[in-house]
Amino acid sequence: MESLKTKIALEGRVLPGNILKVDNFLNHQVDVNFLRSVGDEFKKLFQDKEITKVLTAEVSGIAIGTVTAESLGVPMLFAKKYAGSNMDTDTYEAKVHSYTKNNDYLLRVSKRYLNKEDKVLIVDDFLANGCALAGLIELCLQSGATIVGCGVVIEKEFQGGREYLKKYNFPIESLAIVESMGDGKINFKA
Amino acid sequence: MESLKTKIALEGRVLPGNILKVDNFLNHQVDVNFLRSVGDEFKKLFQDKEITKVLTAEVSGIAIGTVTAESLGVPMLFAKKYAGSNMDTDTYEAKVHSYTKNNDYLLRVSKRYLNKEDKVLIVDDFLANGCALAGLIELCLQSGATIVGCGVVIEKEFQGGREYLKKYNFPIESLAIVESMGDGKINFKA
Repeated sequence: MESLKTKIALEGRVLPGNILKVDNFLNHQVDVNFLRSVGDEFKKLFQDKEITKVLTAEVSGIAIGTVTAESLGVPMLFAKKYAGSNMDTDTYEAKVHSYTKNNDYLLRVSKRYLNKEDKVLIVDDFLANGCALAGLIELCLQSGATIVGCGVVIEKEFQGGREYLKKYNFPIESLAIVESMGDGKINFKA
Repeated sequence: MESLKTKIALEGRVLPGNILKVDNFLNHQVDVNFLRSVGDEFKKLFQDKEITKVLTAEVSGIAIGTVTAESLGVPMLFAKKYAGSNMDTDTYEAKVHSYTKNNDYLLRVSKRYLNKEDKVLIVDDFLANGCALAGLIELCLQSGATIVGCGVVIEKEFQGGREYLKKYNFPIESLAIVESMGDGKINFKA
């Protein structure tokens, strides 16, 4: 998606530790008008799949999940990382390791909202090592839902996530693929 | 907003501890098509205010903030509760007490994204005791931004938040006001 690559090149910041900071339009301040074009792009890529639900993870996936679900005309479900005392107790759970925060956390969704009738599009902001997407995939597998694919806004190819997720054998569509970063420069896959 | 009251009455669940559970359409599974009507309603209520930004808090405010910002045609900014290692260090901060989780947390926004030129609409899913909204208000006050008002999806009037926020003297518009709850019944203010 050329407009996304342009936006990343202009507004993204490369920080130490393989961090690509896009918090001015994607995951702190959110350019919702631009995000609509992201939702529409995912719709174009997956609309023939009879999707019934868009699944993402809190926190950074929620805005993307919201616009994508609206573009597709289906509900959005976000897996919880930080469940409060009023979370349902009957949940699907998947353990995920966060390299950014250097800890493990549980992704949870209520069993009420995911079942074997569902055809699920999984979306997230980043694909890095693949752990977060793997957690979302595990939740779907537990529920018996069909996964139609994964839609990622930015893939950092050099962190190996696509390779790691190969075992699940689902289509992964990334709207921008970063091959390498360094010295403030971001190199995209053509 | 009658359609919202109807939806809460049909799909909401009253749980012990003054919890009104609407996680089937608002804050776990999200009915984004319905949420668009919420965003459009906030637009109708505040559109003459020359809003430049919609501010909300992670996690439950993000979907609402996203659709409202898109309805208004402005960016959305969500204050962080769970900042990772790549959060900007130069932030506005406000301490908030959570009664649901029984702890204090910091709400933070990067100083890059909020300043005295901004005219901010604050939105959130619930107004209960008012602590979360007060935190968002404090962030705006620190930045020098103008607050045009607060838009709340569901106000639980009996928890006193509106009274608590009176000192700030900003308009608060709640789309559904619950006067009392109990025995599985939800009583709305007319």
